[in-house]
Amino acid sequence: MDEEYIDKVKSLIEQKDAENVKTLLTDLHPADIAELCNDLGLEEARFVYRLLDNETAADVLVEMDEDIRKEFLELLPSETIAKRFVDYMDTDDAVDLMRELDEDKQEEILSHIEDIEQAGDIVDLLKYDEDTAGGLMGTEMVTVNENWSMPECLKEMRLQAEKLDEIYYVYVIDDEDRLQGVFPLKKMITSPSVSKVKHVMRKDPISVHVDTPIDEVVQIIEKYDLVAVPVVDSIGRLVGQITVDDVMDEVREQSERDYQLASGLSQDVETDDNVMRQTSARLPWLLIGMLGGIGNSMILGNFDTTFAAHPEMALYIPLIGGTGGNVGTQSSAIIVQGLANSSLDAKDTFKQVAKEAVVAVINATIISLLVYIYNFIRFGATATVTYSVSISLFAVVMFASIFGTLVPMTLEKLKVDPAIATGPFISITNDIIGMMLYMGITVLLS
Amino acid sequence: MDEEYIDKVKSLIEQKDAENVKTLLTDLHPADIAELCNDLGLEEARFVYRLLDNETAADVLVEMDEDIRKEFLELLPSETIAKRFVDYMDTDDAVDLMRELDEDKQEEILSHIEDIEQAGDIVDLLKYDEDTAGGLMGTEMVTVNENWSMPECLKEMRLQAEKLDEIYYVYVIDDEDRLQGVFPLKKMITSPSVSKVKHVMRKDPISVHVDTPIDEVVQIIEKYDLVAVPVVDSIGRLVGQITVDDVMDEVREQSERDYQLASGLSQDVETDDNVMRQTSARLPWLLIGMLGGIGNSMILGNFDTTFAAHPEMALYIPLIGGTGGNVGTQSSAIIVQGLANSSLDAKDTFKQVAKEAVVAVINATIISLLVYIYNFIRFGATATVTYSVSISLFAVVMFASIFGTLVPMTLEKLKVDPAIATGPFISITNDIIGMMLYMGITVLLS
Repeated sequence: MDEEYIDKVKSLIEQKDAENVKTLLTDLHPADIAELCNDLGLEEARFVYRLLDNETAADVLVEMDEDIRKEFLELLPSETIAKRFVDYMDTDDAVDLMRELDEDKQEEILSHIEDIEQAGDIVDLLKYDEDTAGGLMGTEMVTVNENWSMPECLKEMRLQAEKLDEIYYVYVIDDEDRLQGVFPLKKMITSPSVSKVKHVMRKDPISVHVDTPIDEVVQIIEKYDLVAVPVVDSIGRLVGQITVDDVMDEVREQSERDYQLASGLSQDVETDDNVMRQTSARLPWLLIGMLGGIGNSMILGNFDTTFAAHPEMALYIPLIGGTGGNVGTQSSAIIVQGLANSSLDAKDTFKQVAKEAVVAVINATIISLLVYIYNFIRFGATATVTYSVSISLFAVVMFASIFGTLVPMTLEKLKVDPAIATGPFISITNDIIGMMLYMGITVLLS
Repeated sequence: MDEEYIDKVKSLIEQKDAENVKTLLTDLHPADIAELCNDLGLEEARFVYRLLDNETAADVLVEMDEDIRKEFLELLPSETIAKRFVDYMDTDDAVDLMRELDEDKQEEILSHIEDIEQAGDIVDLLKYDEDTAGGLMGTEMVTVNENWSMPECLKEMRLQAEKLDEIYYVYVIDDEDRLQGVFPLKKMITSPSVSKVKHVMRKDPISVHVDTPIDEVVQIIEKYDLVAVPVVDSIGRLVGQITVDDVMDEVREQSERDYQLASGLSQDVETDDNVMRQTSARLPWLLIGMLGGIGNSMILGNFDTTFAAHPEMALYIPLIGGTGGNVGTQSSAIIVQGLANSSLDAKDTFKQVAKEAVVAVINATIISLLVYIYNFIRFGATATVTYSVSISLFAVVMFASIFGTLVPMTLEKLKVDPAIATGPFISITNDIIGMMLYMGITVLLS
């Protein structure tokens, strides 16, 4: 979708040339129309919307950029949202959309949905916590009873499949709606048609509970290479399904969030966000960094006699601070990533800190030795700076490694997102502690 | 899989109690056995392997941790690898495994594969670049001819499906093997069985070319919510399929790589890697940081008269360096993420730099003003430091923002991974430039 194309659409919209815009849109996939709408103004997007059939309009809305969708929905009356969009959406997408609106608007929309069963499903789904399987699942799926014969089953599947965009698995339930098995579609073509469903299905299917946190759902789908996972309630009844496309979005979002936190961005921000949002995502950490820097200037200010006696001390302030920041960032990143992909458990704190300490000793020894040799040549063996810089570097690397390991693991134990303890948090803290260690060690040595 | 369970397995293995280990393993999914093997020693894992049937053994090997798998394969003769594993693997997994071995071993294994067709497919797939669709695809899929009737088609599908683990889509080709359509499985149950395939299939399916870079494949699967995408060669012939599970692994790996680069880790490293590997992943950037710090000490060393005249200048070294690092990290992270998820195009460099400059002016003004007020109170309006620190801060924020935008975008244009220009690279560079600006501005003002 290049700029030329977008300009073409824009000029057609300006001329109110509905016919030609419609022709352009017919060959496009809803995801492409959504991309186009992201690049159009709100009123232009509205013009495009009016030309789409309900089914496509709903698909486009699902694929749109969240921020733009929100603005767009604010333009529309609740009845239109209900009848043109929500009625044609899968329940999981409808719930995502509803969550972006305030409660009054939610109520209004619900009251306008014509399909009572769907409205009921949406109300049920809205009750689940957004970060659990219940909050991510949809209720659209194909289910068959274990006691049916294959011909009965096929007939029922045909009926149910008509209403769905895509079938991933066919779930098998007993008379009490409890999940009993999964029926890979493959079996549908390969199995002899005489048997009962329960003799053909795969028993003990992998499933998740409505309260399973999303992180775990993601891991299960990834680990077992599933395209969907069934969701059950506390007594084992099948209540929904989570599909791989939603999980992939979660993986992407989660890793983008961790990356942004590690880079000192305090809220989700994209290159195409406006200047206001760009600034507000960055300013918090810059201000904290500024306070840290001022704090550092106060600490250093207490040591003016030390600086007067050893003016060359000032030259190594960037080295000490920078090394602390770099080491801390590395350590915390390894921990955060290990916790995120579950290769590390918060219970293993002691083991991990011990290992980290060994790595730290090696790094600290190499760096402080090299700097010692450099200073030995530059200032000679007797200068205070020659010793104090290397000893401080050693102390800073040790501290930053252990601190960078300990803090995220402690946060994980306290059920706080460990990723907040990466990036600027770690570098600012280590910068301050580094200066204290440097000054303290220098005073002791001189 | 808790420690208790692993210890139980370990002690059973020590007693050479094959019967009981086998019983424990029967209920486990191959992915769980793989996880267990990751936690066992090499010889223990070998014991477990001997108890598995070929099909399961191959599945387990595919799911194992790459590093451990590599060591494990080195233990085994080529013939065993071919006959116990590769023969039972999907071609894409077999190719992944082969790529980890050297060419001699590859040749040996290929010569031992019994299924000549599979060996040929593997040889073909190995020719593709690892980072393209061809390098990721597998050749296992269900294909039908567009001219077949539905009953013929179903019969053929049954035959082909027997050999596959999972069916995602059924691809429709013409007599020249060119991809003509996709047949969602759903249609297989819902379509009347009289029609010809070509009248039921979905035409113009979304497909990728063998040379399409993996990044783009990932975007296509994500954007269109596919569970698999067909791969065609330059004349449109269907040659393979990429499934969503492989793409999800790619998303995870790519984001972990970007995150590690931004955190100053020079190679892929996990919490459970040994001390040697942990050290070698971290030391390169720490040494570069050390050189940067020494460089900084040299720069500052040239300004000893300035420091002698204004000793309080030294107090703000951490503030200036830290702010430059924080701003640069933020800017580069936004760009790298925008390029990674394609919301930003390297062609828009000028536009992006202009926008970044506006954001930078706002941040720079706020920070330097606040620091000015602080210094005004601390040192008074006439002190050089009161002006020079704020002016330097302004200059550093402006420089770091634009530099942090420009460098990754330029790298992208040069087809170098822009993520290398994040993290320590940006903070070390900005630290040095920051010191130069600070000293230069101070000299000009005093």
